[in-house]
Amino acid sequence: MELWFTEKQTKNFGITAKIKRTLHTEQTEFQKLDMIETEEFGNMLVLDGMVMTTQKDEFVYHEMVAHVPLFTHPNPENVLVVGGGDGGVIREVLKHPSVKKATLVEIDGKVIEYSKQYLPEIAGKLEDPRVEVKVDDGFMHIAKSENVYDVIMVDSTEPVGPAVNLFTKGFYAGISKALKEDGIFVAQTDNPWFTPELITNVQRDVKEIFPITRLYIANIPTYPSGMWTFTIGSKKHDPLEVSSDRFFDIETKYYTPELHKACFALPKFVSDLIK
Amino acid sequence: MELWFTEKQTKNFGITAKIKRTLHTEQTEFQKLDMIETEEFGNMLVLDGMVMTTQKDEFVYHEMVAHVPLFTHPNPENVLVVGGGDGGVIREVLKHPSVKKATLVEIDGKVIEYSKQYLPEIAGKLEDPRVEVKVDDGFMHIAKSENVYDVIMVDSTEPVGPAVNLFTKGFYAGISKALKEDGIFVAQTDNPWFTPELITNVQRDVKEIFPITRLYIANIPTYPSGMWTFTIGSKKHDPLEVSSDRFFDIETKYYTPELHKACFALPKFVSDLIK
Repeated sequence: MELWFTEKQTKNFGITAKIKRTLHTEQTEFQKLDMIETEEFGNMLVLDGMVMTTQKDEFVYHEMVAHVPLFTHPNPENVLVVGGGDGGVIREVLKHPSVKKATLVEIDGKVIEYSKQYLPEIAGKLEDPRVEVKVDDGFMHIAKSENVYDVIMVDSTEPVGPAVNLFTKGFYAGISKALKEDGIFVAQTDNPWFTPELITNVQRDVKEIFPITRLYIANIPTYPSGMWTFTIGSKKHDPLEVSSDRFFDIETKYYTPELHKACFALPKFVSDLIK
Repeated sequence: MELWFTEKQTKNFGITAKIKRTLHTEQTEFQKLDMIETEEFGNMLVLDGMVMTTQKDEFVYHEMVAHVPLFTHPNPENVLVVGGGDGGVIREVLKHPSVKKATLVEIDGKVIEYSKQYLPEIAGKLEDPRVEVKVDDGFMHIAKSENVYDVIMVDSTEPVGPAVNLFTKGFYAGISKALKEDGIFVAQTDNPWFTPELITNVQRDVKEIFPITRLYIANIPTYPSGMWTFTIGSKKHDPLEVSSDRFFDIETKYYTPELHKACFALPKFVSDLIK
């Protein structure tokens, strides 16, 4: 018998992956959590039926969400990750020696628990002394924070279920307040093939709050369309104007200083979405 | 009843698309040809079970295979497309007013016939007076040509079935001979996630024949991993050194002059493949 997991990424299109076995399945307080072992992508975390991360391609998302804003900020010391319970963004954040504290606020403690168990190379840095892990509502954490963070990364699920508040203008206003005066935030903003309106709407909302708003792209094979976007809102520092002496060597598999700029070169149909 | 077409892009991973109906299915002299109408991507041409092109995302491949070499060459007049029976590359080639003649050599006349019927917005320019369509073996056509073409584009299927000869060093040597002294060729070279060795091997072979060898990338949702690579071999002109006054406005949905350079910025794991 063959077992295949299929994610319908839209009503009419999806990906399908042969699985060796189900490692864990649970209805948590917030969502359906499945950890499966796939043949092609290794262990895979699935929330509410959507692929969140896999051992084979996780580096793309985690490197690109972390290093673009962190190299844009001249001296990131205090960093917040909202969501991201698998720990992959935190792992990348810690590659920056300027970072003194990295706080993870994940609403679902079960994501952290099972990532540590089944995705250890992703979650392994959550025990680092510079890291504080809070199992809490990211929206509420942001609302309580003022002038605290240099960089905030929103590593959320899609705008359904527990993450729905994280795609609102009120949330971006809260992020602005939580950031210091030269702070930067980044959020994953889905793909331009199947959810173009989401990109248009988020960019419009972020532009009203942040003087510098940018969109960049990375290729993630297990995410819908393979083309993923990230929206940056920045109070002062422009990711397109990072001087070359800001970059230093870190170990990556996707991110490079050259890509730091090239990832903002958008296909015509994508730049048309955010005009 | 729901009908879904699934392409196993690897033994263990695939995409799946809901279809409205099968428009045509036939075992041609060379391959299994299916034309299906999908909900998400419109009409879709499938050869030997692999998605070749769809109405929704075809523009990415066709623009990127055509405009990168055509804007690199200062004055492309005589252009050859090997494969590409759907006509999409030809359509893009004709956007360059310097082109006096565009020859299409497609081994399978049935691909041309059913593309004209079911993909008219892709194949519609095959009747243009500047176009010559030959139903012939591309490998043999190249072998017979000497010092003829400014730009050659290899728009082939995967290196199985009728296209297997198009991924050989002998073919690249033939292309070099068929090109004029400042000629350029481009070939699609699959994706770095599932077929990294192919990219490594093609780049190695092309490097032995062409002084300038480059790899670039585009996002194509219906192709394996969503990240597609193209290999350029050039005798004289470097795609990275096109002066900004070479570019002129053409109607595109993906290609832009900015992307012309940015698409050569490779993720670290990809550049490692061609070191």
